[in-house]
Amino acid sequence: MTLNHGHDPCNPETIQLAKMSGSFKSWVFGLNPSKVLHLVYKLMRSRSLKHVQTKTIKPLWFFQPLGTRDYNPKQMAIREKVFNTVVACFKRHGAETIDTPVFELKETLTGKYGEDSKLIYDLKDQGGELLSLRYDLTVPFARYLAMNKITNIKRYHIAKVYRRDNPSMTRGRYREFYQCDFDIAGQYDAMIPDAECLKIVHEILSELELGDFRIKVNDRRILDGMFAACGVPDDKFRTICSTVDKLDKMSWEDVKNEMVNEKGLSEQAADLIGEFVSMQGGRDLAERLLQNPRLSQNKLACSGLSDVKLLFSYLELFQVTDKVVFDLSLARGLDYYTGLIYEAVLTQAGLSGDTLNGAEDSVSVGSVAGGGRYDGLVGMFDPKGRKVPCVGVSFGIERIFTIMEQKAESSADKVRTTEVQVLVASAQKNLLEERLKLVTDLWKAGIKAEVMYKKNPKLLSQLQHCEESGIPLVAILGEQELKDGVVKLRVVATREEVDFSRADLIREIRRRTSEA
Amino acid sequence: MTLNHGHDPCNPETIQLAKMSGSFKSWVFGLNPSKVLHLVYKLMRSRSLKHVQTKTIKPLWFFQPLGTRDYNPKQMAIREKVFNTVVACFKRHGAETIDTPVFELKETLTGKYGEDSKLIYDLKDQGGELLSLRYDLTVPFARYLAMNKITNIKRYHIAKVYRRDNPSMTRGRYREFYQCDFDIAGQYDAMIPDAECLKIVHEILSELELGDFRIKVNDRRILDGMFAACGVPDDKFRTICSTVDKLDKMSWEDVKNEMVNEKGLSEQAADLIGEFVSMQGGRDLAERLLQNPRLSQNKLACSGLSDVKLLFSYLELFQVTDKVVFDLSLARGLDYYTGLIYEAVLTQAGLSGDTLNGAEDSVSVGSVAGGGRYDGLVGMFDPKGRKVPCVGVSFGIERIFTIMEQKAESSADKVRTTEVQVLVASAQKNLLEERLKLVTDLWKAGIKAEVMYKKNPKLLSQLQHCEESGIPLVAILGEQELKDGVVKLRVVATREEVDFSRADLIREIRRRTSEA
Repeated sequence: MTLNHGHDPCNPETIQLAKMSGSFKSWVFGLNPSKVLHLVYKLMRSRSLKHVQTKTIKPLWFFQPLGTRDYNPKQMAIREKVFNTVVACFKRHGAETIDTPVFELKETLTGKYGEDSKLIYDLKDQGGELLSLRYDLTVPFARYLAMNKITNIKRYHIAKVYRRDNPSMTRGRYREFYQCDFDIAGQYDAMIPDAECLKIVHEILSELELGDFRIKVNDRRILDGMFAACGVPDDKFRTICSTVDKLDKMSWEDVKNEMVNEKGLSEQAADLIGEFVSMQGGRDLAERLLQNPRLSQNKLACSGLSDVKLLFSYLELFQVTDKVVFDLSLARGLDYYTGLIYEAVLTQAGLSGDTLNGAEDSVSVGSVAGGGRYDGLVGMFDPKGRKVPCVGVSFGIERIFTIMEQKAESSADKVRTTEVQVLVASAQKNLLEERLKLVTDLWKAGIKAEVMYKKNPKLLSQLQHCEESGIPLVAILGEQELKDGVVKLRVVATREEVDFSRADLIREIRRRTSEA
Repeated sequence: MTLNHGHDPCNPETIQLAKMSGSFKSWVFGLNPSKVLHLVYKLMRSRSLKHVQTKTIKPLWFFQPLGTRDYNPKQMAIREKVFNTVVACFKRHGAETIDTPVFELKETLTGKYGEDSKLIYDLKDQGGELLSLRYDLTVPFARYLAMNKITNIKRYHIAKVYRRDNPSMTRGRYREFYQCDFDIAGQYDAMIPDAECLKIVHEILSELELGDFRIKVNDRRILDGMFAACGVPDDKFRTICSTVDKLDKMSWEDVKNEMVNEKGLSEQAADLIGEFVSMQGGRDLAERLLQNPRLSQNKLACSGLSDVKLLFSYLELFQVTDKVVFDLSLARGLDYYTGLIYEAVLTQAGLSGDTLNGAEDSVSVGSVAGGGRYDGLVGMFDPKGRKVPCVGVSFGIERIFTIMEQKAESSADKVRTTEVQVLVASAQKNLLEERLKLVTDLWKAGIKAEVMYKKNPKLLSQLQHCEESGIPLVAILGEQELKDGVVKLRVVATREEVDFSRADLIREIRRRTSEA
């Protein structure tokens, strides 16, 4: 299968690429932008022309795989902040952490992802095993539990996953992206761990201050019961479920059309589904549906509805019902869910990429977390089929980074990318040795310190380096200071300068940087 | 190319696999271990038999790619500690951090790794670009610099890299493993950034307390000058260099044999090389070699030797000469080095894997860090060939983990895998709602807290959970406490119990856990 890239000249990805190209930009935008970009983009990505030596293009487009990105130091500083918030929450809820390899045996991933399986990256057969890059962290987690015969664990896992999807960088959709997963495995009483997962979503999205959000919940058993009650044949449950899942991106008319004309469902069944999937509410909706003549006859639907009711009672105790909506249109694409499912969406319009892509974004601001219960997955890896019930949530952190980056851009505060507390500088020539000796003392004392890698740097350029990278202090050595056995400590912000003995210097640096 | 796995029945990997298999172990070791293992191992890894349903074997061997490992929570706790030490050192030296994708365009990696290129993992051609998993972090760094036209940066990068090498788990050699890289890019005065890299190796290896170590240094220019002086033809420099690099694993006789019989070098040239590569020393050796009649006529060798001399003068100021050895046998395998090269080895015998593999380990305890100067690499990615001089070091952290794990195993201290401060427990039935309310309050106050996911857990099993996972405090709710409006706080270690009001409880938990 060849993915069809660059078919749209106004594709934000295409424009993004153009924006990245400094030298190329002016030339391109002098002409008809969309046409030229379309052409260039196609040319770049066509294998046969890969070795065309067009100097203006080569350094940008040919260097990085499509749909991936480097993180520069500023982005890393933001990423670290987001991870710290997420990890702090996971730890507050008592989770351990594990790690698994970036690739799995191909068969480990087979039959777990439904229609999305086509997006899995395979490794080349170089002799040995057939391997694939992980598609999520859930299947590796289940494999880990089965392999180690673990029946109880609460763990988080933060790592990159891989999907050969059509990337859109401005919307935070990449082919390589981080997931932050939190899962609870074990045989417990109904809905208690499930409720904690939703509590965690609520805490993290609130703390990150991304704007208002909703957490939609539904249950696979309710969906299946609903499909049965609406007259969907058993063997069409999964595929109709996939179509319902598109309701956040497509109108009901288009979804119905796919059900009837592509998937061969009767129009009557589709219309019945249409009634249900328009329903939203809270605990009250679950209670009402338990009385619904169609659903109440279906055992699966009833147990799902009772559990949703129970869930809401726990969510009230966790004080998170303000953001949670029971939404019958929520389906989730993956095959492995067996019970409760949920998805968090940011509801504030205009958060990201709107300048390029407003129309599309107004339909769906986008999901930033999702998950559910998967009680059968671990058993698929156990030779005796022993089940380990699991529930978990995954944060699609890339989109969150995109929003945080935009916030940092528009903020007045400068993002520091190092933590250097003091630059060891010299006021005259031939003092490299003295600078190296002093910085060695500072490092030994655990102080974050730098010297410039020049024999004889100018004092001005040393001070400029501090201004640029936000270093708050300069320890200046001159001939006079050496004679007096002191070091001049300069505060960059105020230009205040005081001489200190070597012993006092370290104390003073500590004092000043712990204050900050 | 097919890698030849499992050819050795006493291979530590094979035995390691056997040790991992609980159920299988007893059966295997009842028979002749090496023969059975050999057979089973071969059977498992042969593609054609992959789907054999042997229940005793399947859950262990078929589940994880060869040469990779999962990290369990205990290993992750140790890993976090190591990373914290490494990152703290990098930050102390003023480094920023970046990240790059796990795969690069295949052509990005082509021609950078010499004979090791055969170990690169390629992705399957699924339409689109040809991709490979990164082999190290240095080439992606150079690509990043060229692509973003960066001429000055001091950055660290901690990430996994991939090599289709013959794995040996007991010796900490994997196909997926972490590297911790620190590099300084920019046009600076000679040997100042180079010396800081060695200072960092010294600091990190000292702080991790891995036992005694040596940092060997040499210079590619000295090697090339030496090859020229010994009569090695120009076009054989790189391949002879690769052979010299094997001196840490092979005897001089075997190395000479490879030079003469495989690579077609004259015996006379090989013997001359043999004299040089046996030399070790410090600044004095550099000074002596500058007077050597053969070497002193070679310009390259002289500039290398002068720089090594200068390097040692900086290393003295950095107070690290106790561990640094100028060693003419150090060659390093990679193609891209242009100047100074170095490698840190642990010199303490018997650190790892010796029970299984003593003979091999006594030859080389193993390199834990390596690096050097690569002034030409960035230019290979720049359309105009603009060079950015770079020097850096990479820590092979997997081997360090192995040692730290062994230290943790033999230590009496239990490694905690969560940071939970308090378990919210109940003394009677029907108090789930009260527990959920209280834990919500604690989370809100930023306290790391848990409840057991049962409606009516027994108090004893709640207390046992604390003992097992090292949770220091229990907040106990009972009917009497609820009536009195208090919570009983129990200290797990001392069994001391005191009642607190809700407001005081949080303060008391904070006080007790900040003390710990």
